[in-house]
Amino acid sequence: MKHFYVINGPNLNRLGKREPTVYGKETLEDLEAYVSTKAEALGCKVTCFQSNIEGEIVNWIHQAEDEQAAGILLNPAAFTHYSYAIREAISSVAVPVIEIHLSNVHAREPFRHQSVTAAVTKGQIVGFGFRGYELALRALLEEE
Amino acid sequence: MKHFYVINGPNLNRLGKREPTVYGKETLEDLEAYVSTKAEALGCKVTCFQSNIEGEIVNWIHQAEDEQAAGILLNPAAFTHYSYAIREAISSVAVPVIEIHLSNVHAREPFRHQSVTAAVTKGQIVGFGFRGYELALRALLEEE
Amino acid sequence: MKHFYVINGPNLNRLGKREPTVYGKETLEDLEAYVSTKAEALGCKVTCFQSNIEGEIVNWIHQAEDEQAAGILLNPAAFTHYSYAIREAISSVAVPVIEIHLSNVHAREPFRHQSVTAAVTKGQIVGFGFRGYELALRALLEEE
Amino acid sequence: MKHFYVINGPNLNRLGKREPTVYGKETLEDLEAYVSTKAEALGCKVTCFQSNIEGEIVNWIHQAEDEQAAGILLNPAAFTHYSYAIREAISSVAVPVIEIHLSNVHAREPFRHQSVTAAVTKGQIVGFGFRGYELALRALLEEE
Amino acid sequence: MKHFYVINGPNLNRLGKREPTVYGKETLEDLEAYVSTKAEALGCKVTCFQSNIEGEIVNWIHQAEDEQAAGILLNPAAFTHYSYAIREAISSVAVPVIEIHLSNVHAREPFRHQSVTAAVTKGQIVGFGFRGYELALRALLEEE
Amino acid sequence: MKHFYVINGPNLNRLGKREPTVYGKETLEDLEAYVSTKAEALGCKVTCFQSNIEGEIVNWIHQAEDEQAAGILLNPAAFTHYSYAIREAISSVAVPVIEIHLSNVHAREPFRHQSVTAAVTKGQIVGFGFRGYELALRALLEEE
Amino acid sequence: MKHFYVINGPNLNRLGKREPTVYGKETLEDLEAYVSTKAEALGCKVTCFQSNIEGEIVNWIHQAEDEQAAGILLNPAAFTHYSYAIREAISSVAVPVIEIHLSNVHAREPFRHQSVTAAVTKGQIVGFGFRGYELALRALLEEE
Amino acid sequence: MKHFYVINGPNLNRLGKREPTVYGKETLEDLEAYVSTKAEALGCKVTCFQSNIEGEIVNWIHQAEDEQAAGILLNPAAFTHYSYAIREAISSVAVPVIEIHLSNVHAREPFRHQSVTAAVTKGQIVGFGFRGYELALRALLEEE
Amino acid sequence: MKHFYVINGPNLNRLGKREPTVYGKETLEDLEAYVSTKAEALGCKVTCFQSNIEGEIVNWIHQAEDEQAAGILLNPAAFTHYSYAIREAISSVAVPVIEIHLSNVHAREPFRHQSVTAAVTKGQIVGFGFRGYELALRALLEEE
Amino acid sequence: MKHFYVINGPNLNRLGKREPTVYGKETLEDLEAYVSTKAEALGCKVTCFQSNIEGEIVNWIHQAEDEQAAGILLNPAAFTHYSYAIREAISSVAVPVIEIHLSNVHAREPFRHQSVTAAVTKGQIVGFGFRGYELALRALLEEE
Amino acid sequence: MKHFYVINGPNLNRLGKREPTVYGKETLEDLEAYVSTKAEALGCKVTCFQSNIEGEIVNWIHQAEDEQAAGILLNPAAFTHYSYAIREAISSVAVPVIEIHLSNVHAREPFRHQSVTAAVTKGQIVGFGFRGYELALRALLEEE
Amino acid sequence: MKHFYVINGPNLNRLGKREPTVYGKETLEDLEAYVSTKAEALGCKVTCFQSNIEGEIVNWIHQAEDEQAAGILLNPAAFTHYSYAIREAISSVAVPVIEIHLSNVHAREPFRHQSVTAAVTKGQIVGFGFRGYELALRALLEEE
Repeated sequence: MKHFYVINGPNLNRLGKREPTVYGKETLEDLEAYVSTKAEALGCKVTCFQSNIEGEIVNWIHQAEDEQAAGILLNPAAFTHYSYAIREAISSVAVPVIEIHLSNVHAREPFRHQSVTAAVTKGQIVGFGFRGYELALRALLEEE
Repeated sequence: MKHFYVINGPNLNRLGKREPTVYGKETLEDLEAYVSTKAEALGCKVTCFQSNIEGEIVNWIHQAEDEQAAGILLNPAAFTHYSYAIREAISSVAVPVIEIHLSNVHAREPFRHQSVTAAVTKGQIVGFGFRGYELALRALLEEE
Repeated sequence: MKHFYVINGPNLNRLGKREPTVYGKETLEDLEAYVSTKAEALGCKVTCFQSNIEGEIVNWIHQAEDEQAAGILLNPAAFTHYSYAIREAISSVAVPVIEIHLSNVHAREPFRHQSVTAAVTKGQIVGFGFRGYELALRALLEEE
Repeated sequence: MKHFYVINGPNLNRLGKREPTVYGKETLEDLEAYVSTKAEALGCKVTCFQSNIEGEIVNWIHQAEDEQAAGILLNPAAFTHYSYAIREAISSVAVPVIEIHLSNVHAREPFRHQSVTAAVTKGQIVGFGFRGYELALRALLEEE
Repeated sequence: MKHFYVINGPNLNRLGKREPTVYGKETLEDLEAYVSTKAEALGCKVTCFQSNIEGEIVNWIHQAEDEQAAGILLNPAAFTHYSYAIREAISSVAVPVIEIHLSNVHAREPFRHQSVTAAVTKGQIVGFGFRGYELALRALLEEE
Repeated sequence: MKHFYVINGPNLNRLGKREPTVYGKETLEDLEAYVSTKAEALGCKVTCFQSNIEGEIVNWIHQAEDEQAAGILLNPAAFTHYSYAIREAISSVAVPVIEIHLSNVHAREPFRHQSVTAAVTKGQIVGFGFRGYELALRALLEEE
Repeated sequence: MKHFYVINGPNLNRLGKREPTVYGKETLEDLEAYVSTKAEALGCKVTCFQSNIEGEIVNWIHQAEDEQAAGILLNPAAFTHYSYAIREAISSVAVPVIEIHLSNVHAREPFRHQSVTAAVTKGQIVGFGFRGYELALRALLEEE
Repeated sequence: MKHFYVINGPNLNRLGKREPTVYGKETLEDLEAYVSTKAEALGCKVTCFQSNIEGEIVNWIHQAEDEQAAGILLNPAAFTHYSYAIREAISSVAVPVIEIHLSNVHAREPFRHQSVTAAVTKGQIVGFGFRGYELALRALLEEE
Repeated sequence: MKHFYVINGPNLNRLGKREPTVYGKETLEDLEAYVSTKAEALGCKVTCFQSNIEGEIVNWIHQAEDEQAAGILLNPAAFTHYSYAIREAISSVAVPVIEIHLSNVHAREPFRHQSVTAAVTKGQIVGFGFRGYELALRALLEEE
Repeated sequence: MKHFYVINGPNLNRLGKREPTVYGKETLEDLEAYVSTKAEALGCKVTCFQSNIEGEIVNWIHQAEDEQAAGILLNPAAFTHYSYAIREAISSVAVPVIEIHLSNVHAREPFRHQSVTAAVTKGQIVGFGFRGYELALRALLEEE
Repeated sequence: MKHFYVINGPNLNRLGKREPTVYGKETLEDLEAYVSTKAEALGCKVTCFQSNIEGEIVNWIHQAEDEQAAGILLNPAAFTHYSYAIREAISSVAVPVIEIHLSNVHAREPFRHQSVTAAVTKGQIVGFGFRGYELALRALLEEE
Repeated sequence: MKHFYVINGPNLNRLGKREPTVYGKETLEDLEAYVSTKAEALGCKVTCFQSNIEGEIVNWIHQAEDEQAAGILLNPAAFTHYSYAIREAISSVAVPVIEIHLSNVHAREPFRHQSVTAAVTKGQIVGFGFRGYELALRALLEEE
């Protein structure tokens, strides 16, 4: 059974509490449950991670390769816009990574229009809320 | 049965012939057949359009609303980077639009990193080849 | 009797349907009727054109000169911001051209603040809705 | 009878003497007489002001509101390009303001292409010489 | 008893009337009364100035030194963004100057993010409404 | 009794040792003692935090809300200039945050002139050394 | 006998009428006759196209490959500066393309200094009027 | 006897008091006496003006022409960097203007490297202290 | 015996696995062994650190001073390009720091051409692989 | 018989040795022989120069005029991108100059896209290898 | 008797022949004779140099110091805009250098507005033709 | 015995005389003696060159290859920042080149932060004074 990493970046542990007009009322726990359920339905499994510390996300990306994960669903959140460390972590592994954003970042403040990580991911899914994670799972499953 | 518009922009009629290392060997006809098959499997239908003329794409976006399409799968191709006319066509309709790119545009030349249309679409799916169209269909179906 | 061309650019055929908080509820037909009525009152006549295709607008600008139009009322809409082809069409004719915008483009998104066509027109009338077309007619009539 | 303020900015007191190939040979007095005559013909009246001191223009904009002027015809001249003080004066009153330029500023030096005031005015009329003031009067009269 | 200058820049004489959602309903007179009261409570006194003319503000900054003021509370308002004359006036005196803004300028339009005067002041207090003036008084009193 | 968080960012644990001509000779312990004493005098209390790890600062901002802190005094130090993660942490809580800088950052290197966090704070107090923390406490107390 | 496409872009149908101080008095018909005569002399033949519609130029570039043209002489005119669609059309064919400009674009307005198409052509011939087309023919003939 | 205007801009009334390491210890009165003495020696006379108000400088430039001054020695000080009003005042008169700076502005902060007025003056003399005014007088005398 | 800190930044724990065409096949352990051996041969010793967490690197730079290290060999890796926190950590200690990069960063992507830390280090050694660390040791030893 | 100067800039003496995948294997001697042969065939003659010293190229451009050369074929090589001295040398002579580049500079690094000399030449021929020199000869011969 | 170096940069040997509408009809010999005559009248002497080779100008600046010249009159011509080598030559000597331009460079093309050498000279004299050299001599004589 | 070229760029012949606070009191002769001594100790030899003329440096780089030098130690000095001619000379030879700077250029003026040559060298050694040349020798010896 294929195994995927789901890595959520800074402040996503505030989902549901944080700016509900932008991000909705569902929490990180809801999101992780949603992805697990979808994974099960698609015949695979996920392990979910969240951190506000950039270096932990770097570590998990490395670990995904060490543990032979089939892919990474990565929502780098604010780190999207400046973390060259995460960019290089992605470059340093062969595991395919999909960049996910809950909201349509291109419709928000200009600083959100730049992603320093997108160039080294396999692709991006932007603007579909929780649904984006399921679409990313499907995209990665298709990869084989 | 829901009906979606699939609109492909300039030079996509050269798919298969054009830069096969970037875009693969399958043709526009293959792409349109792929999307139709996927639509059928998902219980909906698609009508496919392609043009090298910006204004025809504007017209089809208008027509999508007039014909009560449930959504538009739009690959603006080169127009992504400068067609404010297409941007405003999207703004002028209530039909949800998903922007699709076959390749990971963020890993290519700098001019491809800017999208003037993304801000007014519902979301973007980037880098998954033909599969991106199926994911977009799923995203739009979920919309209801 | 003097004869003027009124040329409206992309998406203006969606007037009334498109973003009514910005553009109001009146349609392109209403606009054209308004201008015709105003023209008649001022002792001149207008022929109205609208296209979503940049090249057709270029053609009509050429045609205005061939048919000895006394002036052109041009709302380039989205083409304002990138169509050097329309800019050069204006340069290629001796007919005076007035650039019109329905809304105050300077109070909207930054991309709307740049006009690539303004430098080669006679002048601009910006922010007065339909009324801008009447003012432009008056400005051109005064030209003699 | 409606009452409008006509405020002309720095160096417009040199009209007629200043760069006649750009601005013509008529003087500020000629301009003010022209606008007064046009106002009378349109059933309203104007009071004309000119200053080379930015703060006096700010004061007159405030005063226009205090004296219940129906609108302001403002040619900020050189202040157009840097006077955020005038911008904010316009924002601080409810009186509608129209920005007027005698020449087509977009066809001149690059520094003239930026207006820091346009965003907070009702609209702009650019390039029509004295005639621009009459058009602005008409535009404001229509406002009611 | 220490004596401070309070200098308010352009359009602050419109406080209460101007954009009340941004600046509240209290007037310049209210502000000056507030600062005087606070000064008295803190055992010092203030003299209040307001002008829409940049050069008058320059003059008052010079005068503050000539009259041995213990400090200046300066809200340069719109001049913050371009008045190098005020910047140099501050540089030309030994009196400490604190730059005050009523609203959080960093949360507003981009042009408000640049201060040409901040570099030569002692410090800035931004975003606390009238209260900012009291805080600045306290900061200056501590200076001794 | 109201309770405030005082969060100091990277390298502030070197205060007193670090660049004493810029930051003085007093240490972080001195600063924390100063703020505690001032808080007591003002009838409130503070809890002080310092970290060189961005994610810990994000966590404490979240925790401030969970523990019903009445406000946060935040000196983001070097993170001011690039930490969108801290920016979003501030956005994700309702607790008011005041940004504090010991030195006048606008009088130093250009990279210090940009704050990515200021836009989402309540206000900024810049350039007053330790005293800035007391002023911020007063500003927050007034908030009620 | 080798067969070349000659594709002229927008407003070149106004040659002779348009800005004769820049472009001379000869017409598009004169230009096409000139190139045909030169081609004949060089033992090859040309087919000439002109359009003001970007998409038609894209189509002709595709068609050149389908019809086994030996090369394309392309004067993209105003499209030079923004048509990524034409750039990609050139990339999508194996037929060699030479970019031609009648005037020395580098001696004119700054917007003319940027070519978005040059990078994907074989080479450029700039500033030699009609003669540039003959030189381009020679350059392409040598290619074999 | 030829008559020249000497116009000094904002904060030059603080000469001698202001930043003596940059500007020396001599005052504006010393400067004006120096220039008068030099003028007398050269067989001409000067009238000296100083203002912190931009508009007064504009007025004096106009007046120089009305009073048939043979030239203007202008030190625009801080206005150098943003006063398009003064730029246009210079353009509006036929009197030759020489721009003078006491210090070498190119060796100071970057904002001092840009002059918006230099383009419309006859020439600039920069970095020679009071001596610059004498050199400018000589340059203007030679003009005849 | 002199003691040096060797601090390697994010993703260097992937050396040997990561992009071997850029970074070679040797691992971090190989690198640390190499530097230790070289140090011994030069009569000094090193302690090696690696972290993916920016704040830990900040801490070690502080600790180097506390433990009287004679110098720091710092490869900030991706942090080179944005970590003002590390820049300020370097400024906060008197220990000399040498910035090392394994590859020639100037021959790679543009984002690698900017170092925010270089200005506050003693010097840089770039492009010599492991050998760069030995050269840095030599440079620091010479310092005495 | 007409006489042309052929001036090749820095590093072209390394042709054949230098980056053969870009510039081919033929040497400068081959190039000069090629141009001489072509000139003879066209009934004119050439004198060939090459230097790595900017000032020598300036001198030869001057000399071309003094010796009544009928034109200059100039490949400024690296000087293209920064030598305003060569630009002005071209401006200082009446002899027509054609700028030649062997490779398609627009398809290479961004610094090669800017030519500081192109604006003052008669035209450019780019991307045709040695053949470009023959085309330039033809273009100049046509000049008469 | 004081001795000054007069160093003229590239293309100034074409004075009189080069762009006479900009630079007049007098030659370099005329200029050098003019300066010599003026020097004699002022009780000093000059040695004149001109080169089109940047390095020779660097050498002469060094030599000026070695030969105890009292100052350098430097017209760097085109080198003004990019020669950091000349900038550093000026920095490397204690001899005062005055930068001279014949024409008002600020009224010409934008590339002429930037001087990389001005920051390290004593001052600039711009726009006064030959007369600028005499003014510079006077400025240097005053230096003692 | 391996043979290296040591090439020093403009103004380095002023070492010891030039800005001693930046560059120390030792001369170019001292530097060349230092490198020769170090080379001898390392079992290799060096030939030293210095020029203020860019083209001579280009020539020596070519010559290094012709004479089978084992490497080049290049301090391009001011040419670092603009000499694309030297950049291309480096590209045109197979001999490895190391770029050396005596001072830490990143801690000085912004123009010194850009190197146009670094991308085509093997590596850079920056900030170690004379010692940098020895380190570069070692780096090149290791190359074998």
